[in-house]
Amino acid sequence: MAGFLGDLRVVEVSAFIAAPIGGMTLAQMGAEVIRIDPIGGNIDYRRWPLAPTGTSLYWTGLNKSKRSVALALHKPEGREIARALICAPGEGKGILLTNLPASGWMSHAELSKHRADLIMMRLTGNHDGSGAVDYTVNCASGFPTATGSGGEPVNHVLPAWDIAAGLYLSTGLLAAERARRRDGQGREVTLALSDVMLASVATLGYVADVQVNNSVRPPMGNDLYGAWGRDFPTKDGRRVMVCAISNRQWAAVGKATGLAEKIAMIGPMLDVDLNDEGGRFEARHAINAVLAPWFAKHTLAEIGEAFAGTGVLWGPYQDFGQLVREDARCSTANPMFSQISQQGVGEILAPAVPLGFAERAPAAPAPRLGEDTDRVLAEVLGLTTSAIGKLHDAGTIAGPQE
Amino acid sequence: MAGFLGDLRVVEVSAFIAAPIGGMTLAQMGAEVIRIDPIGGNIDYRRWPLAPTGTSLYWTGLNKSKRSVALALHKPEGREIARALICAPGEGKGILLTNLPASGWMSHAELSKHRADLIMMRLTGNHDGSGAVDYTVNCASGFPTATGSGGEPVNHVLPAWDIAAGLYLSTGLLAAERARRRDGQGREVTLALSDVMLASVATLGYVADVQVNNSVRPPMGNDLYGAWGRDFPTKDGRRVMVCAISNRQWAAVGKATGLAEKIAMIGPMLDVDLNDEGGRFEARHAINAVLAPWFAKHTLAEIGEAFAGTGVLWGPYQDFGQLVREDARCSTANPMFSQISQQGVGEILAPAVPLGFAERAPAAPAPRLGEDTDRVLAEVLGLTTSAIGKLHDAGTIAGPQE
Repeated sequence: MAGFLGDLRVVEVSAFIAAPIGGMTLAQMGAEVIRIDPIGGNIDYRRWPLAPTGTSLYWTGLNKSKRSVALALHKPEGREIARALICAPGEGKGILLTNLPASGWMSHAELSKHRADLIMMRLTGNHDGSGAVDYTVNCASGFPTATGSGGEPVNHVLPAWDIAAGLYLSTGLLAAERARRRDGQGREVTLALSDVMLASVATLGYVADVQVNNSVRPPMGNDLYGAWGRDFPTKDGRRVMVCAISNRQWAAVGKATGLAEKIAMIGPMLDVDLNDEGGRFEARHAINAVLAPWFAKHTLAEIGEAFAGTGVLWGPYQDFGQLVREDARCSTANPMFSQISQQGVGEILAPAVPLGFAERAPAAPAPRLGEDTDRVLAEVLGLTTSAIGKLHDAGTIAGPQE
Repeated sequence: MAGFLGDLRVVEVSAFIAAPIGGMTLAQMGAEVIRIDPIGGNIDYRRWPLAPTGTSLYWTGLNKSKRSVALALHKPEGREIARALICAPGEGKGILLTNLPASGWMSHAELSKHRADLIMMRLTGNHDGSGAVDYTVNCASGFPTATGSGGEPVNHVLPAWDIAAGLYLSTGLLAAERARRRDGQGREVTLALSDVMLASVATLGYVADVQVNNSVRPPMGNDLYGAWGRDFPTKDGRRVMVCAISNRQWAAVGKATGLAEKIAMIGPMLDVDLNDEGGRFEARHAINAVLAPWFAKHTLAEIGEAFAGTGVLWGPYQDFGQLVREDARCSTANPMFSQISQQGVGEILAPAVPLGFAERAPAAPAPRLGEDTDRVLAEVLGLTTSAIGKLHDAGTIAGPQE
């Protein structure tokens, strides 16, 4: 397999979004990622949205480029195979990535008995081990009450905390494996989903804003905070987002719309410095009043033409359908995407890892559940065809399932 | 410095959120991250929110644990020092992380002349190199039109694409450095912010849902999609998010509220299987109708008591003030947090990297701009005090500034 990480093997015992994204990111960079599931699939195996066949578009999307092994994890024999896969020898091997409760046989203490330098990446809900998911972390973050135009809190739809958690896991896994090559030590690395949220909220200054300024960021619709930017309806019923962070971007807005002179009247009128991003934020309602009619008089296509090559930072609003059907970036014109054939789904557009590098492999499909059971047991554990057959007969392992 | 990454050095030439988060994540795991800025600061140096002193809570939050070097980057002499820092020899060195236009002296081709195995992580807006920021990527993602209760699109407030991009950069940097230790090759690794969005939308199944089912996910307020969960107002004017993904979590909701029998009537009434997450999604309005009065009759504290230890997945909505003042996870009771003294800001709560491991160091403050200029030039480039003094006199470098 092409990629950076050819000699890295990660065993993933996971469900849902975060841990699978962590594993998939490494798999798409060339690591061998073996996802172990119970026979019949884990709790996320039928998660919506589904294809007409019942195959989950969610599961197949989140598990591309992995190998799938199906084991009877409720039985000691199945667990023993899982443990052997996790603890198999070799440099760049002996790495477990999981978001399941890591107790009993799957605890770091137990597994370390079988490979002393085991690296275990373990995602929990909260740092005390209690449960939390993106929804119940997000409500506590402060963001829903600062989203929209005020009134009732608005949940995000993108599982942003899960995505960030998955990428912290891939970062931490590579860091721990790097450290192991230097000092020979295995490690347990934990990550709480709510800590991902809390670290982000603090890093972006929201916590200090409360502590230092006693200021709680209020909702302000689609306006940017601390700079100028917002959405505008167009003549043809579409909508665009336009913003300016730098003074050059700001000057470009005035020039491209032909409204620079009118906008310049706002500074003396409101006693603000429009060459300062904070000044533009303070004057945003006046700025928007000047600009909105221009957008209302032009179609999306006309706005695109007026802004092309000017340095104006802008983009159209699109629903998921428009994104897929109208945005060239969401097509094979973008080198990240290729057309793949996904079992149970059909021909779909699928992304490689978004990191671009010379050896980047195009997207590969997700495996069928259990698709690689036999091959992995032969390759990693050296089991014979006969031994594998007996494990099938005993119901300890399973091959490809629908 | 404690941590995994003690011998790794990354030079960061960056602004705003994504690249700085990538660098900070590595710095908080023990890497030496040298952020180079123009004298006086880059474009993000005064970004809101600000402390009363004018110090940016945003900049200081995003640049913790780094070293700061201030150079006259508009002059050839300043650029030469930057290049020398980027291309300094040593294993684990020779790594540049940037989101600035990497042309001229900062192109991979130019820098590679000075260190053939340079690793360069380069963030752009779009894959064709054109500009985009979180706001203009997000509007195109489909999420704003699927957020809230319908009508006008709702922007997220969390810069989720920036955060994910930062963590892709830290993952990719460690992967490229790992590959370099195996094959001796430097690499340029690119990342487009819009590709982070596109890969996420596709990975979560939204693209395939359009392609395979011709289905465009509509806004559905704070309801979960494909499972049961939503927000409920409480008796005391607060609000909670409650959800159930597994059947065990679902059973816990009925048991803890004492409404299991009433809820069970919904299955036969609507001909849905409430032991299936999709069935619960289809029956959500009836489920909510049964549950809402229970929440309306209980205070947040009473709900917390009723749910404690039951396995119900829930959380309170909090604004940023409530998060800081009421949530024990956002305090030094959480091992991720410590109290730090940040120049220009004061005593604030600051997070370590959210990954928990034995050597994790507590949060360290952000440097003052230029705080480490002299030390870094002495340590990394071996410049004498006299040589450094001359560079100060010539205005090529600058020390700590306010």
